[in-house]
Amino acid sequence: MDAYPATAGTMPTRLAERASHDRQTIHAVLDEALVCHLAYLRDGRPVVIPTIHARIGERLLLHGSTGASVARSAATGGVAVCVAVTLLDGLVLARSAFHHSMNYRSVVIHGIARPVTDDAEQTRALDAILEHIWPGRTDACRPPNGKERAATSLLALDLLEVSAKIRTGDPVDEPADLDGPWWSGVVPVGIGFGHPQPAADLRPGPVAPGATPARSRS
Amino acid sequence: MDAYPATAGTMPTRLAERASHDRQTIHAVLDEALVCHLAYLRDGRPVVIPTIHARIGERLLLHGSTGASVARSAATGGVAVCVAVTLLDGLVLARSAFHHSMNYRSVVIHGIARPVTDDAEQTRALDAILEHIWPGRTDACRPPNGKERAATSLLALDLLEVSAKIRTGDPVDEPADLDGPWWSGVVPVGIGFGHPQPAADLRPGPVAPGATPARSRS
Repeated sequence: MDAYPATAGTMPTRLAERASHDRQTIHAVLDEALVCHLAYLRDGRPVVIPTIHARIGERLLLHGSTGASVARSAATGGVAVCVAVTLLDGLVLARSAFHHSMNYRSVVIHGIARPVTDDAEQTRALDAILEHIWPGRTDACRPPNGKERAATSLLALDLLEVSAKIRTGDPVDEPADLDGPWWSGVVPVGIGFGHPQPAADLRPGPVAPGATPARSRS
Repeated sequence: MDAYPATAGTMPTRLAERASHDRQTIHAVLDEALVCHLAYLRDGRPVVIPTIHARIGERLLLHGSTGASVARSAATGGVAVCVAVTLLDGLVLARSAFHHSMNYRSVVIHGIARPVTDDAEQTRALDAILEHIWPGRTDACRPPNGKERAATSLLALDLLEVSAKIRTGDPVDEPADLDGPWWSGVVPVGIGFGHPQPAADLRPGPVAPGATPARSRS
């Protein structure tokens, strides 16, 4: 199947022309983004926190330690979550204030997150998150020992109820505004990476990671 | 007061040393970030969506059109929300897989969002969001007319229950790993802006916006 099913939870209530359920598009957004936002309920109230993630096939792995309370809830059999992954691509400066916008690719996932408890799955998940941060890094650092693995809380969320929203291209201005005195266009926006900075306690010998690896993987 | 009060909702459950309630620090994060993530309940389940925001003093204004259902809920007297604003500053590549991390500044706000209905407040809020996207832009485009204002849904959220989490600096490696063969350090990460791209339908005359304006305002 090339697309996720459209459900009541993933049909947009507006701007339907920006919606997508295309699997490849959605995977690309999940793989490129360095941060996701995880929402859940705590004492009946919504909570959202940033965390890091990785995708393995049709499953999203989430570093759960940042949300200790969601990890505890998940341990009791699964917890209802919503995850948003957002890439900002441009500032859309229209002739009118009203038509200002942003170019973006965003994915929203609804589902039940469960803790990763199986040893083999945990190893795969930790490797995937590390490779997500910096491809090739699993072979360039010390792997976790048993105590470190036990201290790491991971959540798994299957990609079942998933949708994307995407805006690209120029501002859409009112015809009456086209001859006005206002500039109209897009300012591209993206993540930039600086030169790797060695730690103050780095000993002579280890070689810095090279060029920033590409993050868009299919 | 220079700090927001620490409440049960804003005390971290772990990594307390990264927590901050400092008002100036929190304002700077809110002002610099171009996107926020808004969480709320829909049919008892958590939902999180990206949207744009601006701060006016001790109030956050949210562009609510992207979440039509939350705007409808807010119209009935206010809706419980949580907003996360996250800035990624670096990839922390440690000697061990376990100590990999990210440098970031994130703010989480809990509260009751209400719709902006007062005309004057709506004008101020729309201007603030436009200036947040591109400082100076309110004077460089056509202001909204009555129909456009009516079509724009805005939410207001007072900054009462607010906290920040911040990580900076080098990896923190295990002493036993310091002499290992692994590189350790930080790869800086930040938002980059490209050259403004004129719209295909731009007429001769209007001048493109100049250098990208600074976004860190106090």
